[in-house]
Amino acid sequence: MPTYEDANIFAKMLRGEIPAYKVYEDDKSLAFLDIMPRAPGHTLVIPKSKARNILDVAPDDLAHVIKVTQKIARAAMRTFDAEGVTIQQFNESAGGQVVFHLP
Amino acid sequence: MPTYEDANIFAKMLRGEIPAYKVYEDDKSLAFLDIMPRAPGHTLVIPKSKARNILDVAPDDLAHVIKVTQKIARAAMRTFDAEGVTIQQFNESAGGQVVFHLP
Repeated sequence: MPTYEDANIFAKMLRGEIPAYKVYEDDKSLAFLDIMPRAPGHTLVIPKSKARNILDVAPDDLAHVIKVTQKIARAAMRTFDAEGVTIQQFNESAGGQVVFHLP
Repeated sequence: MPTYEDANIFAKMLRGEIPAYKVYEDDKSLAFLDIMPRAPGHTLVIPKSKARNILDVAPDDLAHVIKVTQKIARAAMRTFDAEGVTIQQFNESAGGQVVFHLP
């Protein structure tokens, strides 16, 4: 698997080089709205650590990200008065990944 | 949200009432092959705790499940010599959920 590349768009968001519509942030993760939402409230949750995807992320960083994802899912249900929520996570191009920083 | 229902098919697998093609098991989780795979190696990872989906599962149980999911994803990449892997998680009917035990 290729290694992490610092020039990816999520890394630029984390460094503040490009803007992000942040909905949650802590010392280890960031959640922000997708620029091309596939559903109302489409939010991306990423770790701040340099992980390419689920194949190389540190297990504890991954665990933190899914806990934040749970918070976001619950908040999205309330905010949009939604009846359901779908979570997807893509790894490598063949797995549907577009930006090579773990979302 | 409706509460957890003991008659769901995953609960029956966990109780050994119906068979499952197990690929991993520990005290808190079970991973097994989907009976109608959407891709080669389609595996479901579920907690043994009685959680309906991501909206009600205990955060630590959820964290454990995603760590196991990472193990399965890595193993699937090796086993199938795959170039990528996709992870999906559905919540409530509107979110694509079919069996109401957290997968």
